[in-house]
Formats: sequence, structure tokens, C-alpha cells
Amino acid sequence: MSSDDRVYFFDSTLRDGAQSQGVDFTVADKRTLAEALDKLGVDYIEGGWPGANPTDDAFFQAPPRLENARMIAFGMTRRAGRSPENDPGMAALLNSRADGVCIVGKTWDFHVDLALGIDRQEYVDIIADSVAHAAGRAGEAMFDAEHFFDGYKANPDYALQCVEAAYNAGARWVVLCDTNGGTLPDEIERIVGEVSARIPGTRLGIHCHDDTGNAVANSLAAVRAGARQVQGTLNGLGERCGNANLISVIATLALKTDYPVGISRDQLKQLTHVSRLLDERLNRQPARNTPYVGESAFAHKGGLHVSAVEKDPRTYEHIEPELVGNRRHIVVSDQSGRSNILARFREIGIDLDGDDPQLATLVERVKAREFEGYAYDGAEASFELMARRALGQVPEYFGLSRFRVMDDRRWNARGELVTESEATVTCEVAGRDVMTVANGNGPVNALDLALRKALIEVYPQLEDMDLVDYKVRILTPQAGTGAVTRVMIESADSQGRHWTTVGVSTNIIDASFNALHDGITWKLYREGAQAAKDG
Amino acid sequence: MSSDDRVYFFDSTLRDGAQSQGVDFTVADKRTLAEALDKLGVDYIEGGWPGANPTDDAFFQAPPRLENARMIAFGMTRRAGRSPENDPGMAALLNSRADGVCIVGKTWDFHVDLALGIDRQEYVDIIADSVAHAAGRAGEAMFDAEHFFDGYKANPDYALQCVEAAYNAGARWVVLCDTNGGTLPDEIERIVGEVSARIPGTRLGIHCHDDTGNAVANSLAAVRAGARQVQGTLNGLGERCGNANLISVIATLALKTDYPVGISRDQLKQLTHVSRLLDERLNRQPARNTPYVGESAFAHKGGLHVSAVEKDPRTYEHIEPELVGNRRHIVVSDQSGRSNILARFREIGIDLDGDDPQLATLVERVKAREFEGYAYDGAEASFELMARRALGQVPEYFGLSRFRVMDDRRWNARGELVTESEATVTCEVAGRDVMTVANGNGPVNALDLALRKALIEVYPQLEDMDLVDYKVRILTPQAGTGAVTRVMIESADSQGRHWTTVGVSTNIIDASFNALHDGITWKLYREGAQAAKDG
Repeated sequence: MSSDDRVYFFDSTLRDGAQSQGVDFTVADKRTLAEALDKLGVDYIEGGWPGANPTDDAFFQAPPRLENARMIAFGMTRRAGRSPENDPGMAALLNSRADGVCIVGKTWDFHVDLALGIDRQEYVDIIADSVAHAAGRAGEAMFDAEHFFDGYKANPDYALQCVEAAYNAGARWVVLCDTNGGTLPDEIERIVGEVSARIPGTRLGIHCHDDTGNAVANSLAAVRAGARQVQGTLNGLGERCGNANLISVIATLALKTDYPVGISRDQLKQLTHVSRLLDERLNRQPARNTPYVGESAFAHKGGLHVSAVEKDPRTYEHIEPELVGNRRHIVVSDQSGRSNILARFREIGIDLDGDDPQLATLVERVKAREFEGYAYDGAEASFELMARRALGQVPEYFGLSRFRVMDDRRWNARGELVTESEATVTCEVAGRDVMTVANGNGPVNALDLALRKALIEVYPQLEDMDLVDYKVRILTPQAGTGAVTRVMIESADSQGRHWTTVGVSTNIIDASFNALHDGITWKLYREGAQAAKDG
Repeated sequence: MSSDDRVYFFDSTLRDGAQSQGVDFTVADKRTLAEALDKLGVDYIEGGWPGANPTDDAFFQAPPRLENARMIAFGMTRRAGRSPENDPGMAALLNSRADGVCIVGKTWDFHVDLALGIDRQEYVDIIADSVAHAAGRAGEAMFDAEHFFDGYKANPDYALQCVEAAYNAGARWVVLCDTNGGTLPDEIERIVGEVSARIPGTRLGIHCHDDTGNAVANSLAAVRAGARQVQGTLNGLGERCGNANLISVIATLALKTDYPVGISRDQLKQLTHVSRLLDERLNRQPARNTPYVGESAFAHKGGLHVSAVEKDPRTYEHIEPELVGNRRHIVVSDQSGRSNILARFREIGIDLDGDDPQLATLVERVKAREFEGYAYDGAEASFELMARRALGQVPEYFGLSRFRVMDDRRWNARGELVTESEATVTCEVAGRDVMTVANGNGPVNALDLALRKALIEVYPQLEDMDLVDYKVRILTPQAGTGAVTRVMIESADSQGRHWTTVGVSTNIIDASFNALHDGITWKLYREGAQAAKDG
């Protein structure tokens, strides 16, 4: 492979990704993500669209300092009837503090006729002088050929005329976009091949959407046909079905092909972190089944698979999970054989012999708990406590005698409807009955505060622990009995530890208490606390 | 295209899909899904693995009656050292009441050496006589060539020897599996092409996993190279990153290629329903961004896109959503221009003129609500109520004067820790103050029951309404203020209507009350109820 084969990565999470349903980045989100993408080693980061909304304006007024990547601002060709110099959109674009610009223009005659309603030849001129103006003013100008593949299929001459106008006007990259996402890999490969006879592949980019589930394959097909810039988004964020998942594209090109890329082996290990960071900023549960970086991407559930993986991971893993910063995961479930559960125990540091008589009890306990609705998949801390309790390793740090939680919504003296939550807890700690009361921001918060108040004197390390996430799910009753509520609570401390615990009950407050109880117990156990004795 | 080009669809949701983390089908789930797959028109339904677990045994004792599809049972080649006649696994397989069987065997020398530890040639014989035995006893026998692509890359002669043994022994189909999911589309196309020189394409199947995000593209590549059976699962269910999403494969082949398939245009319209049915049985939120059938697959958020789609949907849609039973969706969001909001209103039957002075107020209200944390994306009923309230169309059916909810956990006389929830509600209905109290299965349930008790006399239609789902999410505070809780409640009535409402507050009980309030109001409004007047 020659230097002409170097593939450049262009991340559009902050611009095209922001078009997704339910996504609303703050300026702080954008800065954090741009810095992470820069560290990862992508070549271009498209930060947004200056002039389109206040968030993007604020972002481009003080863009983050990047070490590797170029920051790109996105905008449109000039309007018909204006010169590029007098177009307010282009002015906003060129006045931003970006390192380069990406100008989007149409290449499908149908769109020029219908959406713009202007003469087709006039629009080719608009592309040419918009790109020429930008190329003369910005560090680097590229052209996004919107709907290129649909346009090429409808009218190849016109579509080519549009992209050649951009190329001749000085666009560093002409990016062929499958905007509606309906093109299939073999079509992409054929059409990119045909275009590269007119514009060198080293100047061609590809931008795919996942409407047929082929966005990653389409991107790879374009690279095979000669394109050397790939656009995509983290986790395939983007409107409708999303953009090409840049993480899958990066991992595949870096690990499974010989194309030179700008991301080192060390940087590749950040892929899992960067993927989860995006979900964290969006406050979403990461999709477990995401290629390469999902929590289940290297999970093994079937008993036969697990024993083979224990012998040699290559039996059921296409790459080593560590290469992308991910890890192997042995799933505990109703289908689990003993080998799964043993492997899972080893993972958390419990070494049990296959013949150990305690093993059968533990397997039974896991199955009984899962039958009740406990899900240990995402609640490692509760799983560990369950196992260690069965082995008699976890002290009972405190006992609950009673709690009472009250929520009251009423009109106050100022004529406002207000709600107050108050919890009373009676605990047995260090041989004494302690009764505390607290007001909270909701019943679970009140309960949490009252419980800590009761414990903090004896266990001061609980000062350093916060509830950071709380999730509730109703489990559909299978047998017509009452519905069961499952609560997952994530806690964190100042040492950067995060742990998740689970509680199950027909009553949400009960389930929450159970999860809180495990959360506190895990912190104390992990720090080697002893159960406090009588006074 | 000739009849040799007919592509057969093989669904493995109930067998390979059941390997996913967090999936545990009941017998009733399997029956319901098999019936839906049969109606959809797939050619084969793999129901499970007889002898592997009690669920699959029970399913195959009384498999559902199918109209089109063949029911397939999955099993393994005989063990070394046993004849096929005396192998208990093969007996369980062949005694099941399936229409055919699929026998999995190894084709990668590394697995034969490591996992089986037997002579390679001996294993070829095992494949041959297992398949021959099954072909003689079952209606149809096929062979799943596990790890075929990894095996072929490592030792093509041995991999071919294995599949040719199965073919010569009478396998109707030889299914080439990319078990570890690491093979790329161009490799699949080349290797399937090479195999089809030895075994006719009309006897070759393909089974892909999504570990690089290319499972759908790999399946299509195999069809291009000659394979005529495609295996996959609904929504790409399956271990690790999942199997090929059969829904995307079906829609793509049926709508975008000329290969004849056994699914009619009318049956194709069931794709969205079948996809959601699976998630319903698994009690999962359907992934919005799923190709073809996701709720966002035809969603339009950006203002420019929305106005173009309003002119002609082909501008931003690769197919008509109705072809797969899906629908267009105009998203209301912070980024929304007026055209989005107007289109969204039209969708729910509110016709407002673009110049209407009420429009600006409504747009402001939507934005203010979203800023507070309301998400109308998934809560259509609350969106409609918000809009109609702003237009003065929704009566206030009742007013809340006060509620109080109490949860009490304590030891009862029998020495058990029990929890009780009790809610007291004071409402103004029909000009009177009504005070009610109820016990519930948790605080929200108690509140719901007390509220209905207060209203049911005046609004008897509320008898026909149930809370069917309840979801809670904590919104990460952006500015360090208190966290906000968002509750979504799904209600249903006997007329098959489902509606979702949303409530937001710093207090979970408050947020739940707000969502309940909207849920009840929507039911009353939708049935044309008038606000009850004094006495």
C-alpha cells in the first residue's frame, strides 16, 4: 500500500449526529467530545453549523484547542442571486474560528428543480463560486455532494458536472453522500469507481447513512473503489437510522485491512471509552450489541461456547477485545452451565473449584434470584455481594427495623402546589437502634439521606459516596401475578469508582431500598470495613 | 432472473436469537413468534434445540400449526464413538415433531483439534453419517457449517471436505456460517463464489453475525455470489452483536433487487409489526433507529428536510414507509422550525395556518416544556394535550387539592418484613371536594387507585383503562441544579388503544402524578367527555 492509500477519518457526530431524534448537545458536550475525538486520532472533526443555532455559534466562538485533528465548520452554498461575498450564511461560516469548512450542495437534478426551483446550470455556477470563495478564505475547503448516489442514478452527467465544478474550484475533498441511505454496497462500489475515473480517489470522500443497515459496508466498499476519506459518527448517531458508525469503520480498517490510517494501536484502545463517553453525555444506556465496543460484543452465554473460550478465545472471538479497549464478559443467566458461573466468579476474584460443594448452592441461588426478576447482567456489584454473602464473606453492617416514607402534595400559603418527601428510618447499627428522619427531593432521595444519617457516625467513609443514576423498569408479569419493579442504582465515589446495584420488589420503594442497601454494603465491603460492634 | 434465483428466508430468532444476553423466551413467546413469522411468509422457522432445555422440549412436543413455513429443529452431529442410531442428541432431534432438522458441525480444523480433540478425517465421517441418518429420517435435513469462513481461510481443503461430505450425504442445504462474525463482505463474496464451484448455489445458505457491523451486507454479498438461503433473526437478535437482521435482508432483497422471494407485497407490510412484536415479547423498548421498521426510520427533524419532505417525500426517503408497514414521523424538538411543528400538528389532526398568531405561542410552549425535560418524542398523548390545551380545547375534568402517599416497611406479627403503600387524594370533581384513600402495590399504584376512586363515579368510562407500563429516567442536571425525574406511563383500554403520557418533576411521585393526570385526561378527551358540572 502506498501513501495514496492513506484513509482519513472525518467525524460528524457534532453536526450530522446532532440531527438525531432525542439529541441536544450543549456547548460543554461538544467541547468534551471534540477533545476525546482529537485524542482518538481522527483527522477531521465537524463541529457544527455556524449561524444555524446559538449552541453552534457559541462553540465556534471558542473552539477547543486540538492537537491532531482539524476543526471543520459546516455550511451551505450561497443563495441564488447573491454573490458569495454578500451571502450571510457563507459569512457566518467563514468568520467562524474553524480550521476548514465543508460546504454542502445538491447534485440530484430532482432536488435542484423541486427544492431550489432554479436553473440547473445556474446551480453548477453557484457550487463553483461558493467553493472557490471558501477555498480562498478558509484553511481547507471541502464539498459535501448531497444525494450524490441518487443523483448519479437519475442523471449521471449532471451529478458529475456538480462534483467536478467543486473539484475544479479547489475543493480539497469531494465527499459523495448517500443522503437518503438507500444505496447498496455493490452500487456504491461501482459508482465510486466510475467517479474516480474523473476525480482522483485521494480527493474523494464517502458519507453514508444506515437506512438499509449497510452504512459500514457502503463505506468500506467506497474505500475499496478508491475513496480515501470516510465520514461517520460515533455509535452511528444520526437522523433516521443513523450515519455510518465511525467506530466500526475505524476498527475494521485498522485491524482487518492494510490501508494506512492516522490512528495508532494505542489510540485504537480508546474506541470503547469514546463510544461510552458519547452515551454518557447523551444520558443513554449504551447499546450492548454494538460491534467491537458494546458490552456484549465479547459476551459468552451458551455453556459450550464458554468452555471453548476458556480454552482459547479465538474459538469464538474475531479479535482480541483489548485491541479496542473492550473486555470479555461471561454472562450469568438462566441458560448458564456451571462453567459460565465459575468463569464469572473468577472474573470478580472468587476462586472456586469445580467440585466445591458450595458451587451447586450458588448456581441455585443465581437461578432463583433471576427467576424473581433480578438481572445481574448490568449490576456487577449486587452479583458480587450475592456470591460473597453465600460464601459467608460479607458482614451485615446494619439491620433495618423500619422505614416510613411520606410524600405530600398540597397548596402552600403562597398559592403554589408543592410536594414534600420525608423519610423516617430505624436501623440497628453497632448494637443500637438509631432513628433518623430526612427530607428529600423525592421519596428515594429522602430514604437515602435518612439511611446515611443513621450510618454515617459509625461508617464515616459513606460521606464519600453519591447516587449518580437511578433506573426503574416494570417487569411484565408472566403468570398474571402482580407486576414486579426492578430498580438499578449506580453509585460513585471520589476515587472514580462506579458500581451498580439492583433491587427487586412489587413495591418500587422497597426495590429502591434493596438497591441502596447493596450500594452502601458494597462500598463498605470494598474498603474492608468491619461490622461495627456494640457501642 | 430464473427460479434458480429464488431466495429462501430462514429465521433463527427462536434458536440462535435465544442466545442473546437478557433473552429468555417462554413457550408462549415461541408459539406467538412462530405464528407471526409464518404469516409474514418466511420459508423456515428454527424453533429451538430439542433436548437442550425444558422450554425447547415443551415447544417441540406441541409445535404451532404453520401454513407456509417449515418448522426446523436444531441439533449437533453425533458424538465420536457412537453410531447415529445410538446418539441421544440425535434421537431427541429426530423424535421432535419438526418438519426438518438442521445439524451443526465444525469445519475449522482448529476447532476439531482443540474443542473435539479427535482425528480430522474421523470428524468428516461423523458429519457424513450424521447428515445421512437425519436425511433418511427427517422431512428435510440441512447442515450448518460452523466457523466455515474462518475454517476456509485457515485450511480451505479441509473446510471444503467437511461441507462436501454433508452435501453428498443428502443435505438439502449447506449453510455457510460466519460464526465469529469477523469476515468482511468482499471476503464473503469471494469465498461463497469459490464454494459454489463445488456445491450449487441453490443448495448453499449463509448465516452471518454482526461483529463488524456488516452482517446484512455479508448476507447480500453471499446472495450475489450465488447462495440462495439466508439465515437471520428478527431485529438482529443474537449473542454478542447479534445475527444478520432478517428484516433488513428481506426488505432490501424484496424492494431493491429482482431476486424472487416467497414474501408478497402484502406480507411485507407486516415487517414493522413483527419487529415490534418481538420487542414486546422481550419487554424491550424497540430501537428507534432500526432500518426500515424503527420509529425513527422515517423521522424528520431538521427544518429544511421537513419542508422538502412535505413537498415530496422522495427528497429524503429511500422507500415509502408504508411498503414495510411503517410511517413517516415529524419530530418536535428544540431544533424544530415552524414547519416541523405545523406538520406535527397536522399529523394529530390540528390544522393551523402558518400565519395563525397562536402558532408562535405554541412553538414557544413546546420549547419551554422541552427545556424543563419533557420529551414528547415518545409521548404523543401528552403532546396532543399540551397543544389542545394551549388552543383551549381540553376541559379541566378535575382539580387536585392535595395528595399524600405513605410507604411503610416494618416487621409484622409473623416476623416478616412487609411494605405497605397508602395514598390519600383530595380532588375537586363536578364542583365537589372528594377525598379517597387506597392501598397499592407501591406508591404510584396506590395514587392511581385513589385517584380513579375519586373520579369513577362521575366518569365511569375510566373503568376501562389500565396502566400497562411505567418508566422512570433521571435527567442529568446540566447546570448543577437538582436532578429532574421524567416518568413515562403507557395506558391501554379494551378498544386496543395504547397511549403514552409524560410527567416531569424533581420528585418522582409528582412526576408520576402528572403523567397519570394526562393519561386520564387523554382517555376522557378522546371519548368526547364533557367536564362534569356541579352536583
